[in-house]
Amino acid sequence: MVPGYLYEQLANELGEAIARGALRAGDRLPSVRRFAEEREVSVSTVLEAYLQLENAGLIEVRPKSGHFVRRRPAPITEPRAARACQEPAKVAIGDAFTEVLEAMRDPSLLPFGMATPDPSYLPIAQLNRIVAQLCRESSTVGARYEAPPGAVTLRRQIARRAVEAGVTLDKDELCTCIGATEGLSLALQAVARAGEVIAVESPAYFGVLQTIERLGLRALEIPADSRDGLDVSAFEAALRSQPVKALFCTPTVSNPLGAIMPEGERERLVRMTRRAGVAIVEDDVYGELAFDGSRPRPLRAFAGPGELSHVILVGSVSKTLAPGYRVGWIAGGRWHDRVVRIKRSQSMACPALLGMAVAEFLASGGYDRHLRRLRQVLAGNIDRYRDEIAAVFPAGTRVAAPRGGFVLWVELPGGIDALALHRQARRQGIVIAPGPLFSARQRFSNFIRISAGTPWSDRVRAGIHDLAVLVEE
Amino acid sequence: MVPGYLYEQLANELGEAIARGALRAGDRLPSVRRFAEEREVSVSTVLEAYLQLENAGLIEVRPKSGHFVRRRPAPITEPRAARACQEPAKVAIGDAFTEVLEAMRDPSLLPFGMATPDPSYLPIAQLNRIVAQLCRESSTVGARYEAPPGAVTLRRQIARRAVEAGVTLDKDELCTCIGATEGLSLALQAVARAGEVIAVESPAYFGVLQTIERLGLRALEIPADSRDGLDVSAFEAALRSQPVKALFCTPTVSNPLGAIMPEGERERLVRMTRRAGVAIVEDDVYGELAFDGSRPRPLRAFAGPGELSHVILVGSVSKTLAPGYRVGWIAGGRWHDRVVRIKRSQSMACPALLGMAVAEFLASGGYDRHLRRLRQVLAGNIDRYRDEIAAVFPAGTRVAAPRGGFVLWVELPGGIDALALHRQARRQGIVIAPGPLFSARQRFSNFIRISAGTPWSDRVRAGIHDLAVLVEE
Repeated sequence: MVPGYLYEQLANELGEAIARGALRAGDRLPSVRRFAEEREVSVSTVLEAYLQLENAGLIEVRPKSGHFVRRRPAPITEPRAARACQEPAKVAIGDAFTEVLEAMRDPSLLPFGMATPDPSYLPIAQLNRIVAQLCRESSTVGARYEAPPGAVTLRRQIARRAVEAGVTLDKDELCTCIGATEGLSLALQAVARAGEVIAVESPAYFGVLQTIERLGLRALEIPADSRDGLDVSAFEAALRSQPVKALFCTPTVSNPLGAIMPEGERERLVRMTRRAGVAIVEDDVYGELAFDGSRPRPLRAFAGPGELSHVILVGSVSKTLAPGYRVGWIAGGRWHDRVVRIKRSQSMACPALLGMAVAEFLASGGYDRHLRRLRQVLAGNIDRYRDEIAAVFPAGTRVAAPRGGFVLWVELPGGIDALALHRQARRQGIVIAPGPLFSARQRFSNFIRISAGTPWSDRVRAGIHDLAVLVEE
Repeated sequence: MVPGYLYEQLANELGEAIARGALRAGDRLPSVRRFAEEREVSVSTVLEAYLQLENAGLIEVRPKSGHFVRRRPAPITEPRAARACQEPAKVAIGDAFTEVLEAMRDPSLLPFGMATPDPSYLPIAQLNRIVAQLCRESSTVGARYEAPPGAVTLRRQIARRAVEAGVTLDKDELCTCIGATEGLSLALQAVARAGEVIAVESPAYFGVLQTIERLGLRALEIPADSRDGLDVSAFEAALRSQPVKALFCTPTVSNPLGAIMPEGERERLVRMTRRAGVAIVEDDVYGELAFDGSRPRPLRAFAGPGELSHVILVGSVSKTLAPGYRVGWIAGGRWHDRVVRIKRSQSMACPALLGMAVAEFLASGGYDRHLRRLRQVLAGNIDRYRDEIAAVFPAGTRVAAPRGGFVLWVELPGGIDALALHRQARRQGIVIAPGPLFSARQRFSNFIRISAGTPWSDRVRAGIHDLAVLVEE
């Protein structure tokens, strides 16, 4: 991570001083004017650097006093990890999904439910400019079906970025799709048939459970924690007793836990599944959002190349660039041909215009700069939301410390019914994602997922307080 | 159809004179100058009117001689209709699909295979301008998921146009999707489960067969002819002996036949299926492309309103505005909630930007004017392609006379292997759609579908001649 601007250098330097403990909680930073003179830079450069640190949640402004290193939150207990399920289960939670997802559609509600970053964090304006330009330059873009595997310009850029993340993907193994959601749907249809067993992290991203339900598959929940994610040893044990067809896994910044699987475990998991003849469907949508700026190598990097790979990689730009563009992709490994075939009958082609715009943005080099800022901002949000929850929620509340992304997995005191809480919160103008959505067996009844994708504000603070009151009651 | 411009009035008047026989094949039209004087209009108005008639294939220019009424083609025998299948069949023609659809992706080949109108026939430039404007006006369009049922502006316009076509659709019963292809996938998943029987026209649109194959359903082929489409009586008989779950049907301009089902048969079919508890999935993508300018009422018009309807209507703008925009919709009738739920897990949201652009175009009123021209141009193409095929293909060739759209269903002399012909044609730079793609049992082995979506040119003529030579051999 090489900062491009002077203010970024300054912000980095100060950030490191805070991390080292050279600057400690409550310490006052030099005044803007003095620091500018000292460093022989402009006042606006220092202001920009301080703003960055503030956005990252590292310092705070006290009116009329200056800038101070923020008090780091008291350590909060992590939620307890799930225990393994004994048996695979059919999924039948469609009604709860529908109820909650309907609520997420209402733009007037406080969006603690939906896992998308606030539009203000995304370079939508830039992307839209590219779209407008493509529209002006070509009078026929959009005229033709861009049949699967989809626009080659986009596939080239995805392959190029994959190389940077340590994975060799060939453009000819990639197929574009409608967000990672479609990729996931394609992947599960390619590797499994109705009745077969898909292992998932527990708690699991609810989207995969929806798809498992729709396809008549069965889910086997494997314990996961918010530090390292999937318990690979528990999974290994499950493999011995259960007819697992595939594993769906989000090794980098899992959802809802925010965990990152250590590299050694990744390698072990890939080896183990290859030996067992079990496919992996890897969800990499948060792959660029680890707070420490690392870009952990996807599981796919440890599997063989293209046709030989038993790891299917699914990605999108929905968490980092433009949810509404619906630009996703799938590297189908040995199931590539089948994936393309399924894609044809599922939705035929992708809108080439939006894919081309994303390709151009990726090619421009602005993506890494954008990602650096996005990670900082999201890390700051997570800290603030987490502090506030710790401060106002009743005793017995536990909050995960995610290592990336923008969602918080919150364990409420026992006896709380998260679905009922969701309904009450909705009446007060707040949407949350209740825990039972994240389990085939509707466990996690006293858990909720809170998205910290919305900038901190009085309204957000009030929303957290309102939730706390509801929980207390 | 009320022509808006003077030249359209003139063209209509002359077109009617030709239809009545007042002007006959070989007759010379008045010279441009004389006609302009006679009618007290400008020379350019007359030129424009003659150009329209020429595009519609009604007149031709003979250099230095003037404009003449074209010789109408000798009547060509229609292909023979299929006989009913005795038993439903699993579909397993994925490899042939893949081979042919791969060929359709190659833009260097002569596209007689793909059922899309040439980009020059479509108002892509206008649509792209709307997209560019939306991008400029809003810096956040594209930022958020437009979760199902999708953008309300688009749903309103679809509902409005449906009313014009004689169907009452409520915006709240509509769900946007990725082209009609996704709509079809959603519909079949909503009404049937693996192993169940879907009745289809024979020959059937190959997309539905792909989807039936993917979902593990079984297809029951019902005879259809190129005038009235589905043989409703044969279907009624099949209902008595087969466990039909749903009927997939394209009553207005079927594909590949180009048939239009008479209104009386529509009513009868809807009544019959309602009584039998059989769902209808109605494909209306060609609904606006009947050459006579009529807008036959969809089957859906004869079923009850919204929640009570057993007819699911699927539509898109892929055949009339912008294939590459992937804007489609589904009115799910009594399965609406299930459709929305399946859509969520299949591809989550649609790109709102493109849907909004289409909505704006539909609202602008330019759509009807565009459709009038498109129908004329396509009717002209169909005539020219059909004449040429009749003139150069070997004896025994039969060509359907489609009543709309832009594809020709061609029966070749017995013994011809259409799949082998496809391969040979591809080597000569021509893509066709071989007949076996249009049947679950891979019947129609000596049929091909030729798309007349490409403007007439020497290259097109040469392509048809090359095909004729291949067939002859």
